[in-house]
Amino acid sequence: MSTHIVTAAVLLIGNEILSGRTKDANLNYLATELTSIGVRLMEARVVPDVPEAIIKAVNELRAAYDYLFTTGGIGPTHDDITAECIAKAFGVPLIKDPRAVRLLTNHYGEANLTEARLRMAHMPEGATMVENPVSIAPGFQIRNVFVLAGVPAICRAMFDGLKGRLRTGDKVLSVTISAHVGEGVIAKGLGALQDRYPELEVGSYPFFRQGRFGASFVLRGTDNSALKAGAEELRTLIRSLGAEPIEGEPQE
Amino acid sequence: MSTHIVTAAVLLIGNEILSGRTKDANLNYLATELTSIGVRLMEARVVPDVPEAIIKAVNELRAAYDYLFTTGGIGPTHDDITAECIAKAFGVPLIKDPRAVRLLTNHYGEANLTEARLRMAHMPEGATMVENPVSIAPGFQIRNVFVLAGVPAICRAMFDGLKGRLRTGDKVLSVTISAHVGEGVIAKGLGALQDRYPELEVGSYPFFRQGRFGASFVLRGTDNSALKAGAEELRTLIRSLGAEPIEGEPQE
Repeated sequence: MSTHIVTAAVLLIGNEILSGRTKDANLNYLATELTSIGVRLMEARVVPDVPEAIIKAVNELRAAYDYLFTTGGIGPTHDDITAECIAKAFGVPLIKDPRAVRLLTNHYGEANLTEARLRMAHMPEGATMVENPVSIAPGFQIRNVFVLAGVPAICRAMFDGLKGRLRTGDKVLSVTISAHVGEGVIAKGLGALQDRYPELEVGSYPFFRQGRFGASFVLRGTDNSALKAGAEELRTLIRSLGAEPIEGEPQE
Repeated sequence: MSTHIVTAAVLLIGNEILSGRTKDANLNYLATELTSIGVRLMEARVVPDVPEAIIKAVNELRAAYDYLFTTGGIGPTHDDITAECIAKAFGVPLIKDPRAVRLLTNHYGEANLTEARLRMAHMPEGATMVENPVSIAPGFQIRNVFVLAGVPAICRAMFDGLKGRLRTGDKVLSVTISAHVGEGVIAKGLGALQDRYPELEVGSYPFFRQGRFGASFVLRGTDNSALKAGAEELRTLIRSLGAEPIEGEPQE
């Protein structure tokens, strides 16, 4: 069975994440959504509002993966420099997109369409709009790069609107089984399980809840029958250590 | 006034963050702490449990910044491959650290010190231990790279214990002032403020709370008197637009 893989990277742009002021909320959303539609998120980066840093990351990530999603830096203020950096990364001019200008004019009205707000109609030449149903000012797509807002509600709405455009691959399915068993106790059997199922990815994530240590074990792969067989072996392994397999994550 | 700058990067290692299973909680903690002690976090990356990806990121980031902090992948299971990848990145052998072996022996007892648990005593040759007051198994430091656990409580305790070792630079101070004013309305004046204070970093972060739009404006810099003067000009700018400056973030 050959596997069809489509890959992606996420680039979070903004000083506020690196200074600790803002807790990013977009990476987990994009990671979950991409996984669910069959796109594999292979890398994420956070860079500051520094043109050289943005341009370098964009060019490295768009070359390395099928898709790149950026968040942040597309508002109307001087520190919103993503569009001009993407244009530089692609070596194309930054233009005022007529359709975006019309949308902004309708939304703000001629009188309130400040020069700053018009900045939000700027896109690299050749880009197409990504719709913003929340606050109108659009994101854009240029080749395999999607440029989204940093405000979580807008980022999500933009992604939800564009995800139908994406080429997707085989979905990575997963089974989670937890147990109150020490990682150091199950590690040997778990490693042997991984060796028997090279087509699966076997992860182990320790937890400490309600005063008890344990771990969640996650099997991931595109082959559902291998996944089922591996999960059954995992349940047997857990029982052989005197513990009871818990389906899914442990209850809070 | 010359500025003394010490830089850092953070590398989060783990499939679970990229698949969406786990919401990272370490980046924001490290970002906030590093900022508070005078180390500038310049970049963060997330990579999967893939040796080539880890080694490449470690070598790029340790060369580019004064410090690199990694989180994740130092437990006892087969998917914990950070120590061996760091050894490869530095081109040194992976050895069993005698002091770490003693700590683990004391903690688990001879009978329970499985081969898997002993894996947690592995470090690249030349590394020194980073203490783990939560669950004993240590992290380590090799040259400018600090290798920390992924479990948030352990990551934090490790960082708190090691931060006294770090060389620090001038602290970046910040002033936050918010207002119920559209970014597109204040953008022009804000850009002019940034131009008048090139030594400050002027950020604008929109919010929507209790049915009202607004933005928080953050001035950052190492020169306290410039910061105070810039903040006063910002308050005047906000008032000139008919709004009232709110010190700090807006109330929830």
